[in-house]
Amino acid sequence: MHSVLRTIKPFEACSDDLLSLLEEGAHEQNCPKGKVLFILGDEAKRFYFIKSGWVKIFRETLDGAQAVLDVIPHGHIFGEDALFGDGEYDYSAEVVEHADIISYPLFVLKEELSKDNDLALAMMSVMARHRRQQDKEIEHRSIQNASQRIGCFLLRLAKHDKPDEPVTIHLPYDKTLVAARLGMQPETFSRALSRLKDKVGVRVKGATIEVDNLNGLIEYSCSACSAKFPCKE
Amino acid sequence: MHSVLRTIKPFEACSDDLLSLLEEGAHEQNCPKGKVLFILGDEAKRFYFIKSGWVKIFRETLDGAQAVLDVIPHGHIFGEDALFGDGEYDYSAEVVEHADIISYPLFVLKEELSKDNDLALAMMSVMARHRRQQDKEIEHRSIQNASQRIGCFLLRLAKHDKPDEPVTIHLPYDKTLVAARLGMQPETFSRALSRLKDKVGVRVKGATIEVDNLNGLIEYSCSACSAKFPCKE
Repeated sequence: MHSVLRTIKPFEACSDDLLSLLEEGAHEQNCPKGKVLFILGDEAKRFYFIKSGWVKIFRETLDGAQAVLDVIPHGHIFGEDALFGDGEYDYSAEVVEHADIISYPLFVLKEELSKDNDLALAMMSVMARHRRQQDKEIEHRSIQNASQRIGCFLLRLAKHDKPDEPVTIHLPYDKTLVAARLGMQPETFSRALSRLKDKVGVRVKGATIEVDNLNGLIEYSCSACSAKFPCKE
Repeated sequence: MHSVLRTIKPFEACSDDLLSLLEEGAHEQNCPKGKVLFILGDEAKRFYFIKSGWVKIFRETLDGAQAVLDVIPHGHIFGEDALFGDGEYDYSAEVVEHADIISYPLFVLKEELSKDNDLALAMMSVMARHRRQQDKEIEHRSIQNASQRIGCFLLRLAKHDKPDEPVTIHLPYDKTLVAARLGMQPETFSRALSRLKDKVGVRVKGATIEVDNLNGLIEYSCSACSAKFPCKE
């Protein structure tokens, strides 16, 4: 059974029957930047696979203040965790860079999880990985200063097989969103990026960031983290 | 089968056989404050139930900076999520108030999860609830100021069935740890608590906090949150 889901967890080893049922109910949409896929509190009927582009996962207060919980790249799913709650999405989702999105019916996944234990185990593994990422996020918000958090963000984007060589890093989406993803106001982000330039000599040209080697960044950011570079996840 | 685990998720509806096997391998210990149960990177062989007391879940950098991920009360388990990783604990655990702790062999739980689909579904439900709590933590770190975070912490401790009446709240552990749990330096915590006194009129006497009614706190803290008071979880 051909399905893009086959390439990702928890579907790598799932049954062809499940993928057939999911693909039967699939709906692909080409979404412009700004398209809202669902908002917190909506009845959860579908989960989403990002074929291309980026999607922002966020929550908003009544006053309009926004917390960006994650910005998810292509090759990932979201919305599937609504299965385990009260039937509503617990966050909102908005396309932030032109995206191809495929959605699938949640009830198909729910039914299969209730009878396919291997799928359930794979799903738990995905959920546990997400927990570790969130733990790391909370750790960084506690320990790292704003410049160190930006450095960490850049390191995760960089190819790290040759840390001694010059590296060019392209910001995947606009700086305002990078700031929000890191839990910073835009002004804090600008000041912290300037401090990062002074500390480790990164050069910023629009959305492109160059650095002579990664060692300075690694020393600066990873010294304020419980994990060693390169991160496991 | 009598077991304290029967009272909590994911064991509420599990088989008697599983509880028997877990209780056979159970080990109860009476732990003084400061007792370290395991540290990040230790081989994960057991999970833990807090019968009484409080346990701090944290991570530390090489330099000794500490991020408190959670402070868990009695009636909860921890360490069970190591099942889904690489066999090591992903955080450290330390008793912060004199505690009775019962530990159980992880492999028993792992084996049962691989064949009992209802248990797997219950475990996923527990993991999803934890995800929502972490999402809320990240949201608060993004949107709420330090005083609002303290207010939110107090509201979760308060009995909220009579928000119009005077309330006395006892801090469950010392202020330094409350500050760390909220991701603040002790000085930031002190300043933010003073501001909270000015804003909503809470009175602080050591570890006891009094307030004429909860409405001011609710308006102040919950206005910077996507959820409404009282929180679902």
